[in-house]
Amino acid sequence: MRILGIDPGLRRTGFGVIDVEGPRLLYVASGTIVVPDKLGMAARLKTLLDHIRQVAAETRPDVAAIEKVFLNTNPSSTLALGQARGAALCGLADSGLEVHEYTALQIKKSVVGTGRAAKVQVQHMVQQLLSLSGLPAADSADALACAICHAHMLPLAAALERGPLATAGARGMRNGRLLGRASHWKTGS
Amino acid sequence: MRILGIDPGLRRTGFGVIDVEGPRLLYVASGTIVVPDKLGMAARLKTLLDHIRQVAAETRPDVAAIEKVFLNTNPSSTLALGQARGAALCGLADSGLEVHEYTALQIKKSVVGTGRAAKVQVQHMVQQLLSLSGLPAADSADALACAICHAHMLPLAAALERGPLATAGARGMRNGRLLGRASHWKTGS
Repeated sequence: MRILGIDPGLRRTGFGVIDVEGPRLLYVASGTIVVPDKLGMAARLKTLLDHIRQVAAETRPDVAAIEKVFLNTNPSSTLALGQARGAALCGLADSGLEVHEYTALQIKKSVVGTGRAAKVQVQHMVQQLLSLSGLPAADSADALACAICHAHMLPLAAALERGPLATAGARGMRNGRLLGRASHWKTGS
Repeated sequence: MRILGIDPGLRRTGFGVIDVEGPRLLYVASGTIVVPDKLGMAARLKTLLDHIRQVAAETRPDVAAIEKVFLNTNPSSTLALGQARGAALCGLADSGLEVHEYTALQIKKSVVGTGRAAKVQVQHMVQQLLSLSGLPAADSADALACAICHAHMLPLAAALERGPLATAGARGMRNGRLLGRASHWKTGS
């Protein structure tokens, strides 16, 4: 199972691709799509759309996960973020990918163990979980963390698909609550 | 010159296509893209993207004009509107169209003559300017009004392209101010 994670933004959109092989997480690729802000809005969104489709075409993921954007208090910024997120979602859906959405809180809890984690903690945990030689850039780390979050949700999703009786006895679940999963995962070398 | 006007929304997106032949405006097509809200966000945006591309492919416009969306006071609604607008802009740009953006105020001023016009006034003026036999639906009327607004801007854009000296003497301009243009346009039969 190959997962493409996306951390959308109008100027900078992070992407990160990982493979899930049983309990192992393997790093595939990551980067940042930078869109020049001197372009008109339609051209900026088209640039983002094209790059997302290109990343999907080159890395051939099975599924995508995207971060739910921060609701800025400034309506213009929220609208701009929404437009960028719309373009990113179009790029993913246009590549035939099913898209799962996670809040920043869900992603931080899944990767670091707490929703109050700082950006640098996310970067360190992503480096550790994927056995990276260096600290990933912030945008890449957020996108990889989103992909890792989806990987951590897979056993829960599988358990839920087996139905309520199976779910109650599923590994990693106790009294209907999902146990912290980061420690269950070995990382790729 | 064929203009595709778009009034974007997450549930309902109006589109309207007009031809500009010299001083005449001719109605070509209009309608509303309705996206079922039971779909996931990515699927909803993909539906909108596909329909916008289909309208562009079937009507073959030369240029597009889109309404700048209302900034809702609710951040979630603003984000949702932004995402829909992002998908619509992607559909237009992906069809190779240059996109012009106009505020609701600009559109109402251009079509009705006042920015304080009610929805039904816009519908009536669109019906009159395009010699339609019946009142257009609200979404179609807004999209057609957006296309008409762009048509009204064309002489100004042409004058500006000729440079500042030419602009000062351009038809429809006096003391650097654009005169009301609606009355200059004959409508198609």
